[in-house]
Amino acid sequence: MAVKPDIEIAREASKRPIQEIGAKLDIGPDHLLPYGHDKAKVDQRFISGLSDRPNGRLILVTAINPTPAGEGKTTTTVGLGDGLSRIGKKAAICIREASLGPNFGMKGGAAGGGHAQIVPMEEMNLHFTGDFHAITSAHNLLAAMIDNHIYWGNEQEIDLRRVVWRRVLDMNDRALRDTVTSLGGVSNGFPRETGFDITVASEVMAILCLAEDLADLERRLGDMIVAYRRDHSPVFARDIGADGAMTVLLKDAMMPNLVQTLEHTPAFVHGGPFANIAHGCNSVIATKTALKLADYVVTEAGFGADLGAEKFFDIKCRKAGLSPDCVVLVATVRALKMNGGVGKDDLGAENVEAVTRGCANLGRHIHNLKGFGVPVVVAINHFTGDTEAEIAAVQDYVAGQGAEAHLCTHWAKGSAGTEALATRVAEIADGGAAQFAPLYPDEMPLWQKIETVAERIYHAHEATADTRIREQLHQWEAQGYGHLPVCMAKTQYSFSTDPNLRGAPEGHVVPVREVRLSAGAGFVVAICGEIMTMPGLPRHPAAEKIRLNAAGDIEGLF
Amino acid sequence: MAVKPDIEIAREASKRPIQEIGAKLDIGPDHLLPYGHDKAKVDQRFISGLSDRPNGRLILVTAINPTPAGEGKTTTTVGLGDGLSRIGKKAAICIREASLGPNFGMKGGAAGGGHAQIVPMEEMNLHFTGDFHAITSAHNLLAAMIDNHIYWGNEQEIDLRRVVWRRVLDMNDRALRDTVTSLGGVSNGFPRETGFDITVASEVMAILCLAEDLADLERRLGDMIVAYRRDHSPVFARDIGADGAMTVLLKDAMMPNLVQTLEHTPAFVHGGPFANIAHGCNSVIATKTALKLADYVVTEAGFGADLGAEKFFDIKCRKAGLSPDCVVLVATVRALKMNGGVGKDDLGAENVEAVTRGCANLGRHIHNLKGFGVPVVVAINHFTGDTEAEIAAVQDYVAGQGAEAHLCTHWAKGSAGTEALATRVAEIADGGAAQFAPLYPDEMPLWQKIETVAERIYHAHEATADTRIREQLHQWEAQGYGHLPVCMAKTQYSFSTDPNLRGAPEGHVVPVREVRLSAGAGFVVAICGEIMTMPGLPRHPAAEKIRLNAAGDIEGLF
Repeated sequence: MAVKPDIEIAREASKRPIQEIGAKLDIGPDHLLPYGHDKAKVDQRFISGLSDRPNGRLILVTAINPTPAGEGKTTTTVGLGDGLSRIGKKAAICIREASLGPNFGMKGGAAGGGHAQIVPMEEMNLHFTGDFHAITSAHNLLAAMIDNHIYWGNEQEIDLRRVVWRRVLDMNDRALRDTVTSLGGVSNGFPRETGFDITVASEVMAILCLAEDLADLERRLGDMIVAYRRDHSPVFARDIGADGAMTVLLKDAMMPNLVQTLEHTPAFVHGGPFANIAHGCNSVIATKTALKLADYVVTEAGFGADLGAEKFFDIKCRKAGLSPDCVVLVATVRALKMNGGVGKDDLGAENVEAVTRGCANLGRHIHNLKGFGVPVVVAINHFTGDTEAEIAAVQDYVAGQGAEAHLCTHWAKGSAGTEALATRVAEIADGGAAQFAPLYPDEMPLWQKIETVAERIYHAHEATADTRIREQLHQWEAQGYGHLPVCMAKTQYSFSTDPNLRGAPEGHVVPVREVRLSAGAGFVVAICGEIMTMPGLPRHPAAEKIRLNAAGDIEGLF
Repeated sequence: MAVKPDIEIAREASKRPIQEIGAKLDIGPDHLLPYGHDKAKVDQRFISGLSDRPNGRLILVTAINPTPAGEGKTTTTVGLGDGLSRIGKKAAICIREASLGPNFGMKGGAAGGGHAQIVPMEEMNLHFTGDFHAITSAHNLLAAMIDNHIYWGNEQEIDLRRVVWRRVLDMNDRALRDTVTSLGGVSNGFPRETGFDITVASEVMAILCLAEDLADLERRLGDMIVAYRRDHSPVFARDIGADGAMTVLLKDAMMPNLVQTLEHTPAFVHGGPFANIAHGCNSVIATKTALKLADYVVTEAGFGADLGAEKFFDIKCRKAGLSPDCVVLVATVRALKMNGGVGKDDLGAENVEAVTRGCANLGRHIHNLKGFGVPVVVAINHFTGDTEAEIAAVQDYVAGQGAEAHLCTHWAKGSAGTEALATRVAEIADGGAAQFAPLYPDEMPLWQKIETVAERIYHAHEATADTRIREQLHQWEAQGYGHLPVCMAKTQYSFSTDPNLRGAPEGHVVPVREVRLSAGAGFVVAICGEIMTMPGLPRHPAAEKIRLNAAGDIEGLF
């Protein structure tokens, strides 16, 4: 079946006024702050007034390990939301916002695809409602205040070599990774080494996504560690006096954004921390608001289930007191084929054997997810070219794991393609079988938490780290941070730290290279392998082709 | 008379829905893109459809040289707009947007004062509709693409030492003035010296404020010079392929923002280039749109008339084909007293003699403004404490200059305090006496243009510059830039380059330290004395006191 390019479908969409979308969730027009005619923020006071209402069902969409073949997690999230609406349920979708920078590097788009998209797609991939700009401003205000504090006498006795707060831009700019600032003489301060990260990597972003309300936001911002003194004692953002002004800069950004799918299902698109150095989930405030307003809330978590779902459960759900009712695990025949050893160029040919081999990756994710006590349903996101035998192979495999797999054709058909999935997900969620429990208790020592994730989720033989790292963890435990969950930073392409090791590797070693404390966000990051907190642009960035055409439409962004 | 603090008056304002404000100018709700309930952008297509309509009258509000005593130029702009509405005229106001960064340094606020304010004041001093963030993004995308171009082989053969395009942030951050970037090894590029300016100092900002439409914007962005080759030939933004993507980032920012005064007069608040290194006026597109929709448009230009009005005439009006009908020159008794030699602590005591002495500053501005062929009216912005004798002294002096001075009490009384001024201004504007002509013709050589401003506006003995600077100007003339106007960068506190030389100095020398070509904006900047393109924060920045209080209101921003 021929499906038009995503951008054409999105442009032809007959969007309803955002007030009409709000009305579906009983949000009155006075509680919606419009941004144009098709986007709105939901008023903070309205949200505060919802706390006594019961919660709807929470459904997490996650996926097998991503491959270049594509798995369509967001597309399926949208398709499932639309499918629930189609079968008469009051449904809402919660996803993260897109980062501006990368859209000018590779061709962008992070709002689903085909007939399962969230609109207005173009604006969501540009400035949207300005949340990320507010985060950039708040983050950099703190940075300016730190250097200003040092400049005017350094009352806090900050060790210039131990300023850990960098700056951010929502841009792919490798030239800013490592810099020296405050050059040029006395009037510009004290030269020091520092650098820039991309805005989505900011701890402020993670905090915005975990804070319950503005008061919690301000407290967490104040708790961030920005530098250390010579005696290694931490200097907090609060000590610099930046927490109040940062909160003021973020007051609108804290309000969830409401938009719609092509089929007019309400969608909250809010927050977007990196799923590698942060927890990679949309905001707690959006998810909680949606749960108060809809009977079924479909959300997603970044990358594969080993990274995204684990952090969703162990960080977001644990911290926010959320209890998911059902997990949908997205797989495609093509991606399973790659997990079974087929190269990208050979994906066109039927290969049942490779699909079956690749199902080991799927199987391990099912096993892991069940370990959190939440029922799992597999969604096979249909691609043109999948054969019946291949699809049957996946369904048989999943049945053998004690789960069920539904073929979904939402990309081509919209909600008509997810009716069966939506029906089963609603039944399961309503069934009350979920007995959610995080992987490890708060009181487990930090290093043991890392080991637990490595062994139980990644199925590694062991996690390793230098004495220096283990001592750092002990020091943080002594300072009162031992109860925090760990936020694993690892390649998304494999259960191991080797991106080329597809399928379901076992017996590997997880080397922890570095640990970082995000005291405001409330987790300890364990970096396993290389991570990039400021991406670069490719040889020919997409920006070279992006322009407005004569009709005023954007070309080259998608 | 007791007037409440600005912020209290602003918060108690009974704002009308922005659609109602649009309706006053016959802008239908479909042509307004709302940002909340009290701000909107005016649709580009609607604006394009206005070109055949006649223009209203254009009134410029400017001022004597600013002093710490305050002259209230924006307050008077707002008061006059409200006064015109009060006497039954269809009026609109056009001012620049506020820069975010400085608000966290000194106490902010750039939306008028007392009962002559534009609202929503807080949002206008924070993110507003995101225009400045869009400019920051567009500017820095170009910067990233330049370094990326060099990284991937430097096809344009850019001389690394001659990259003139810096980066920007809307932040007061002295640590970023001088930096070294691309440190850290091969994967981060080639280390080089560069730095950051504040966003309002960006050439992109100047271009946004001078462009006629999106096509003109894209052309001008492409024309910007970002670097030079070893043979000194310029490399344009177009050569880097950034003009299209920058235009996409700026497409919403190009739409003028509509808000309202406390008395519900429509106000376009759009653009905000620095009045020192750029031309310091609100956007051409806002001014032209307002002229199509209102019978009287009141606008202002940055700092005193020697800087702001001269650039308004010689850059904005010349380039945009605007023809002002009347100029209002704002003065206060206190500021004239300071120009007459009184210190800030002695302003409370009546001193008619000092006022009269200070009137020399006022007189010279009247003389200069008349030289542009536009009728001048003086507005005395009344302060509590001004005595009748002092006011009479100003009025007598102005009468002696062949002009008239009106006492205005809009700060305390709103439009009731500007009825007389509004009536006269409307009469004069309708009278058609204006015969606007810029100070110098396009074809005058660049150096002679600088001399002409120095001698005819600043009343200097001469302008001086090194041979190097004069040769640079000749080189630009040879490259085809000789027809551009000059944009003088000079202290706003004096006609001379010495900020302490108040009144009406004569015979001084204007040393031109540096010249810069803004090829996209379309002017040559002549820097006379020190300018700061990235401010710093004070010892105790306002940010330390800015926070949300328990009621959710912002404290410390004003």
